[in-house]
Amino acid sequence: MPELRRDPVSGKWVIIAVERAQRPEEFQPDVAARKPGACPFCRGAEAATPAEIQSIRDAAGWRVRVIPNKYPALKVEGDLDKRGEGLYDVMNGIGAHEVIIESPEHVHNLTALDDAGVSGVLWMYKQRLVDLKRDFRLVYGLVFKNVGARAGATLEHSHSQLIATPMVPVRVQDEIDRAHAYFDFRGRCLFCDIVRQELATQARIVTESANFVAFEPFAPCSPFETQVLPKRHLSHYEATDDALLRELAGLLRATLLKIDRAIGTPAYNYLIHTAPLNAAPLDHYHWHFEIIPRVTKVAGFEWGTGFFINPVPPEHAAKYLREIRLS
Amino acid sequence: MPELRRDPVSGKWVIIAVERAQRPEEFQPDVAARKPGACPFCRGAEAATPAEIQSIRDAAGWRVRVIPNKYPALKVEGDLDKRGEGLYDVMNGIGAHEVIIESPEHVHNLTALDDAGVSGVLWMYKQRLVDLKRDFRLVYGLVFKNVGARAGATLEHSHSQLIATPMVPVRVQDEIDRAHAYFDFRGRCLFCDIVRQELATQARIVTESANFVAFEPFAPCSPFETQVLPKRHLSHYEATDDALLRELAGLLRATLLKIDRAIGTPAYNYLIHTAPLNAAPLDHYHWHFEIIPRVTKVAGFEWGTGFFINPVPPEHAAKYLREIRLS
Repeated sequence: MPELRRDPVSGKWVIIAVERAQRPEEFQPDVAARKPGACPFCRGAEAATPAEIQSIRDAAGWRVRVIPNKYPALKVEGDLDKRGEGLYDVMNGIGAHEVIIESPEHVHNLTALDDAGVSGVLWMYKQRLVDLKRDFRLVYGLVFKNVGARAGATLEHSHSQLIATPMVPVRVQDEIDRAHAYFDFRGRCLFCDIVRQELATQARIVTESANFVAFEPFAPCSPFETQVLPKRHLSHYEATDDALLRELAGLLRATLLKIDRAIGTPAYNYLIHTAPLNAAPLDHYHWHFEIIPRVTKVAGFEWGTGFFINPVPPEHAAKYLREIRLS
Repeated sequence: MPELRRDPVSGKWVIIAVERAQRPEEFQPDVAARKPGACPFCRGAEAATPAEIQSIRDAAGWRVRVIPNKYPALKVEGDLDKRGEGLYDVMNGIGAHEVIIESPEHVHNLTALDDAGVSGVLWMYKQRLVDLKRDFRLVYGLVFKNVGARAGATLEHSHSQLIATPMVPVRVQDEIDRAHAYFDFRGRCLFCDIVRQELATQARIVTESANFVAFEPFAPCSPFETQVLPKRHLSHYEATDDALLRELAGLLRATLLKIDRAIGTPAYNYLIHTAPLNAAPLDHYHWHFEIIPRVTKVAGFEWGTGFFINPVPPEHAAKYLREIRLS
């Protein structure tokens, strides 16, 4: 059973995951290039993975497939058992850790799929969040994606992950608290105001559609960091209409393609920040995608301070991305 | 002039450092191995660096040398000029960015020096913090060290850096706030209590001397993360007696050597968390070193949540480090 421990100085929770130490890739600097035949996520290798949780299927077989992570950071079985150890706080590592395999073909990137394929992946994120919400021990669900060894991927077959945790993660809680303070002070959603200002100034806009906008944030931690938000207020990703998810698929795919062309298919992470699973709709929080290309290194200064140094002004990055024509 | 911008959602400050984009190494994955003759930090290449700020010298020439960073993240000249840009906050990138060259020889690591050499480096950190304190625009001074390309080093010649900022960085302020809340609640310094509990249980102790202790924190973000603290309460690193810095040099060097032997001279960062330059001595804050070997990757989950997954329990790491005999 993994253990959740809280650092008393920073307040951060750490998963001490003894089982994951068995992963042979853990201390290797790079992902070994696998032959397609050896990939456990490819069509035909289904027996190599844990039993399927959910899938999208058509006449040709599965298109998107969800399985439990074989090396889970948190486990579903057991009680939370919150306790102290002297001045420290600790609890059992209860949670869920799922893998969303995005295609039966051995593709390396979501952009290799067409808009309908991406749409299926976004729809599956929604289904999984709705399903996990029924487990009352789970308080937060984070959907994320690692592409490339430098971004922490250990398998190259295109996939996303979902980790559900028994508390709201500190970074998300900080966002919610700041957004709440803004709402109390100004009576409007911080994110709605950001969308309004970005659309008015246009300087950091990458691309937009009727209901979504992709832009470079005003103070990005790394070059070409990009956010995608719904223009209309909505706190929970999983409350998004299916028709809107189809529209989002086109915009997200175009944004990722532009980033790939701009800086040569970089390693990247993306993640969805959404309201806690068990929260009612919130006036002050607004779900969004964060896309973080991993082109600079996090060094001692960033670790020590939480300050980041970004050599590319977001206005330059946005202009560059806007001008890339996708055929 | 670099710009300091605050992200309205996370509250983090980002240095948008246009000048640094000119650095050719910025987007390269690895540090090119340099021939010793081409290194600007070696004895004899002094003309290749900006003018010296301070040094330690003996009959053989300089032993430790401080210079301004040639590609500074922040600049000393100018006014802060705090202003708004719609809902965003921005100010000029005022600050100091210095490089502490730790040896005239082309060594790659602080552990290549003897205890006296390390002691000189620790003494120089103190001198620089005391000197920068006189500039009232500067509120915080972070001393840090990047070793190896994976930890963000762009030159292999052993060196540290000091960045002084016009505000307390968010990560340090969070620590101070939490430690303050603990002090208000319990009437004791959080760090003093941690030292007391660690010395009592011994399970996470790596090594200790009369006045310092090195241990693995209860909830470390990464394997073999190690902290070094003075046993007696002190909020400001630069208030440490010179005799104690000599003692610390031996302990720090032994700790770094043990980590090198344990996991094969990993890339690592270390940094000093100390009270703000302009603060009076604080009852509730306690300076400390954090040493962070860069052996795991920060992936999407860690970025998205501030949660970390650590496959090595700190009790295992500490036992392993304790049992390493240094000759």
